[in-house]
Amino acid sequence: MQSNLITPTPSAYTYPLLVKQLLLNSQSLYGDQEITYRGELRYSFHAFRQRVGRLASALTALGVRHGSTVAVMDWDSHRYLESYFGIPMMGATLFTVNVRLSAQQILYTLNDSEAEVVLVHADFVPLLEEIKGDLACVRHVVVLADGEPMPQTSLPVAGEYEVLLGQASPDFTFPDFDEHTKAATFYTTGTTGDPKGVSYSHRDIVLHTMATAMTLCSPRDGQRLHREDVYMPITPMFHVLAWGIPYIAVTLGLKIVLPGRYVPELLLKLHDTEKVTFSHCVPTILQMLLQASQGGMHDLSGWKVIIGGSALSPALCEAALECGIDVFAGYGMSETGPVVSLAQLPPRFKPANRQEEVWMRCSTGRPVPMSDFRIVDENLCDVPHDGKSQGEIVLRTPYLTQGYFKKPDASEALWQGGYLHTQDIAVMMPNGFVQIVDRIKDVIKTGGEWVSSIEVEGLIAEVPGVQESAVIGVRDAKWGERPMAFVVCKPGAKVKAGAIREHLLRYVESKRISKYAVPELDRITFVAEIPKTSVGKINKKVLRDRAV
Amino acid sequence: MQSNLITPTPSAYTYPLLVKQLLLNSQSLYGDQEITYRGELRYSFHAFRQRVGRLASALTALGVRHGSTVAVMDWDSHRYLESYFGIPMMGATLFTVNVRLSAQQILYTLNDSEAEVVLVHADFVPLLEEIKGDLACVRHVVVLADGEPMPQTSLPVAGEYEVLLGQASPDFTFPDFDEHTKAATFYTTGTTGDPKGVSYSHRDIVLHTMATAMTLCSPRDGQRLHREDVYMPITPMFHVLAWGIPYIAVTLGLKIVLPGRYVPELLLKLHDTEKVTFSHCVPTILQMLLQASQGGMHDLSGWKVIIGGSALSPALCEAALECGIDVFAGYGMSETGPVVSLAQLPPRFKPANRQEEVWMRCSTGRPVPMSDFRIVDENLCDVPHDGKSQGEIVLRTPYLTQGYFKKPDASEALWQGGYLHTQDIAVMMPNGFVQIVDRIKDVIKTGGEWVSSIEVEGLIAEVPGVQESAVIGVRDAKWGERPMAFVVCKPGAKVKAGAIREHLLRYVESKRISKYAVPELDRITFVAEIPKTSVGKINKKVLRDRAV
Repeated sequence: MQSNLITPTPSAYTYPLLVKQLLLNSQSLYGDQEITYRGELRYSFHAFRQRVGRLASALTALGVRHGSTVAVMDWDSHRYLESYFGIPMMGATLFTVNVRLSAQQILYTLNDSEAEVVLVHADFVPLLEEIKGDLACVRHVVVLADGEPMPQTSLPVAGEYEVLLGQASPDFTFPDFDEHTKAATFYTTGTTGDPKGVSYSHRDIVLHTMATAMTLCSPRDGQRLHREDVYMPITPMFHVLAWGIPYIAVTLGLKIVLPGRYVPELLLKLHDTEKVTFSHCVPTILQMLLQASQGGMHDLSGWKVIIGGSALSPALCEAALECGIDVFAGYGMSETGPVVSLAQLPPRFKPANRQEEVWMRCSTGRPVPMSDFRIVDENLCDVPHDGKSQGEIVLRTPYLTQGYFKKPDASEALWQGGYLHTQDIAVMMPNGFVQIVDRIKDVIKTGGEWVSSIEVEGLIAEVPGVQESAVIGVRDAKWGERPMAFVVCKPGAKVKAGAIREHLLRYVESKRISKYAVPELDRITFVAEIPKTSVGKINKKVLRDRAV
Repeated sequence: MQSNLITPTPSAYTYPLLVKQLLLNSQSLYGDQEITYRGELRYSFHAFRQRVGRLASALTALGVRHGSTVAVMDWDSHRYLESYFGIPMMGATLFTVNVRLSAQQILYTLNDSEAEVVLVHADFVPLLEEIKGDLACVRHVVVLADGEPMPQTSLPVAGEYEVLLGQASPDFTFPDFDEHTKAATFYTTGTTGDPKGVSYSHRDIVLHTMATAMTLCSPRDGQRLHREDVYMPITPMFHVLAWGIPYIAVTLGLKIVLPGRYVPELLLKLHDTEKVTFSHCVPTILQMLLQASQGGMHDLSGWKVIIGGSALSPALCEAALECGIDVFAGYGMSETGPVVSLAQLPPRFKPANRQEEVWMRCSTGRPVPMSDFRIVDENLCDVPHDGKSQGEIVLRTPYLTQGYFKKPDASEALWQGGYLHTQDIAVMMPNGFVQIVDRIKDVIKTGGEWVSSIEVEGLIAEVPGVQESAVIGVRDAKWGERPMAFVVCKPGAKVKAGAIREHLLRYVESKRISKYAVPELDRITFVAEIPKTSVGKINKKVLRDRAV
């Protein structure tokens, strides 16, 4: 089927999709659009472009070449944004280090990625010191002193970021190369095994930018991005390229606010003074912002905020809506670009009641255009789109990870049958809205039924005095598995296991959950804390080990 | 520089950019979005998708295969829209025939394109009859009877479109293939030589859709497209794929109104009854619509209309704004996708006066993101972006024609130096707005200066009694070239050559034009009509021949 291809005339330019095009042909370069770091420093897009050139010149002087990997350990700064462009644009690979991992895990990822140069904020120099003896490939360290004096260190420091940029030429000619060149990499940390390296090519990043931008921009008014928005990321820039939104912001020429280390009061202050209108974060950050804004000091109305990373709960959504925040969920994973669906309200949507609107905003949303987003059974056959039939979300989009770095088995498992397996179990409504009900491995198979651990956790959370809970399946000779709940009470509160059972049984009566979903009294355990992963998700692996 | 490429794991799906993705993963398939033909027939996107399957099945039964070319001769109909998808999606090439060409030119293009099957509206059957003896490759003709009885014809008719679709299966599995496969072709008619075949690959169409959609959707309010818009094309669907906008409308799931043959009263009626909010057309059509709406029967306010094909004049822009039409220019050519710039008002734009706003709306606009849009001198060096320095617009975008079909010399000339040469002379303002001043071959080189024929035409049009004019350069021993004006007076009006000269000389005084721009009295000729090309542009070739 390779016939009927278009053959370019010899002189024709066959345009590769490269990250540089997003910056060099951004919509803002002719204007004086600005980028600010914590409101303390600000410069124009023109200056940004100059600094990206300087960064590439400085890294070239350090021996960085096409194919080199350059690691970054920083808070969300303008320097991080410069690395998002400068490093891939020179043909090197940007490695965004998850600074929340343990020193040993960071060591593993720096060695596995074969990083040659590390750009490191002074705050993380001690962490790097700890592992420096075992670093296999790192030749140079560039310190981001961030306005403070250079820290004392025995690392192989090539210089301070601003000093090196000051000495380097802004005139760097960014070359063309194959659009399948690796542009960025980072590591996803499951609950088992070593972190796995995920990579995106230039083509992936450009297509994710275009597809996500057209989806975000196209609603008539709510839950949308437009050229007059002021953008502030509140998802760490090491986390799946801050969901790819910084690339969109640069392409469309938005004002960009980089908040540095996340401090709720500073985030709110920046929101007010810089007139931020568009952000994205995980539910925990949103919760912190709402708490910090209590007392009515901040007017958050009109702030559009995408929530991802974990599920947006109806209660949190309600609280955000009360403050006037135009909050909605997005869905994706480290391996998926990440954005594959967004919970934007449908065109001409008139909710029957607030509950329906909240449900839609909290849902997994509707697939973005060009995403072949399916919900399938074990044979890769579509389940009915009836809002009830459960299946795994499997995907084909123009920008999915093509496999894990040096992990052929995990890569093949990810792509079994030619679809990317998300391991998320979901239902699809007739109107195309998707709702995730659980992770494949967290679904509790009991009495011949599938019970969503997340749904049971949500219902337990309704019991007065409960702060949080985690539900897992434990082996059972008779039923295959049975649910077991770990419950954290609010400070000072006393909750009884019987009260939880009674609460759940009411939902059995109303047929919302199956009777198999209710844990026995001796499988309701009160704990001081629920173990979490480095990105704040419940670590069910630890709980399962504990249950055994 | 082919190192550091991402290698997909064997099971990974490497997603080709194909037209089918725009339809199969459109944002509207879950809803009940509708498509209507003249308000007389309407069906859902779901039904549209079924009919696209039926079309592919029917064409397969006629022997159409991957690589076949299928020609379409129709007014703007839902059937045309079906062919926009069904034909490329099956791996065949859609050939959109310019039905305004002469029979001999149509014959040339049908033979040159090697079209095997022609879908032809009954209105164009006589035209096809005229040339049937010389058709080299056409095996089958499918008649689009459009609700009327089948016309009598001796053409090799395989059947009537609706009958064939009714007999064919909607279940057609659209295969994957290389994204560089030729999806669509059509012919561009210069003023010299045979029409030249322009082609776009699936990748070109998808990237044009994405880049143009994100540009059109991203403004805060004015001059934008959103998901609640109702779209009606008023640029013929044979004309550069109706500027690619139907692909955007399907991808975003807009309601689509196909108006059939353009009749101003019907277009206005459809605007009213179907609540059309987004269209695009050439200036002549806009003029016709404004004339037909006189008397205040139609409320055109809020109608967003892109103007392309030729320049939007300030007077026409003003008249449209008076009616509340949110009118703005777009720029592109048959060879460029077509959209490469749009005259959307910049973010936070506050015009100093109406004139400034009109100027911006009428300008060539600002390049869409990812377009490497340059204005260069003869050595391919950028001219200053000062609003004065003239140069040729040359381009690199992800979706430009890679050459003309079977025309290697013209293809190389188009792509000389690795940039697509538009042959349009323009200036760029410091804020990135571009203004075309003339076509390269129409610029008058006189007295060592370049005079824009278009600018002089615009000034002559201001003289009371003048309806239209065309200015060309004619050889002159002393000055190289001198301007010559052909002027058409309004019915009943009398204009003197002296009045035109006096009017122009006033602009010499105010330094708007050079004294070399004013034609001598004997080079101002009054004519009954200005010769035009098939797409309505002034045919200066004919005028130059006449002048000699």
